[in-house]
Amino acid sequence: MSLIDYFKARKKTTASVAKERLQIIVSHERTQRNQPDYLPDLQRDLVAVIRKYIPISDDMVQVSLDKTDDHSVLELNITLPEAS
Amino acid sequence: MSLIDYFKARKKTTASVAKERLQIIVSHERTQRNQPDYLPDLQRDLVAVIRKYIPISDDMVQVSLDKTDDHSVLELNITLPEAS
Repeated sequence: MSLIDYFKARKKTTASVAKERLQIIVSHERTQRNQPDYLPDLQRDLVAVIRKYIPISDDMVQVSLDKTDDHSVLELNITLPEAS
Repeated sequence: MSLIDYFKARKKTTASVAKERLQIIVSHERTQRNQPDYLPDLQRDLVAVIRKYIPISDDMVQVSLDKTDDHSVLELNITLPEAS
């Protein structure tokens, strides 16, 4: 399954209200387990970058971080208000 | 399928050489088709943000952009040299 198919499949399972959505996923595979994990800091920077393009407040951003020993996946979900 | 499962499944299908990999995916669903697409600019900013944490050169970054009428998916794949 390609990535665009994955996201389109996900779209169908959520409410079908027409909203603008932006989703950012960062997947980090580490080779060494004792490396620092910079994803929490990166998350803050990513939100700052997005704000250059679209006005978002913190409460529009849902964040989740899944971690295993050698793999971290950071997910940011941003639902934007209707364009006026 | 959860996202972390998706990335772990992808990992198994690629060469199993232990390398550090960072993958960033931006999925943008638009409600209006005539909106400007800022993903190409965003791509440059994302690389700049990653450079705050890890030294990467342009040739380490593979980019792909999949677009349909109302959905764009930007994918950045970064394979890092072995930590010394």
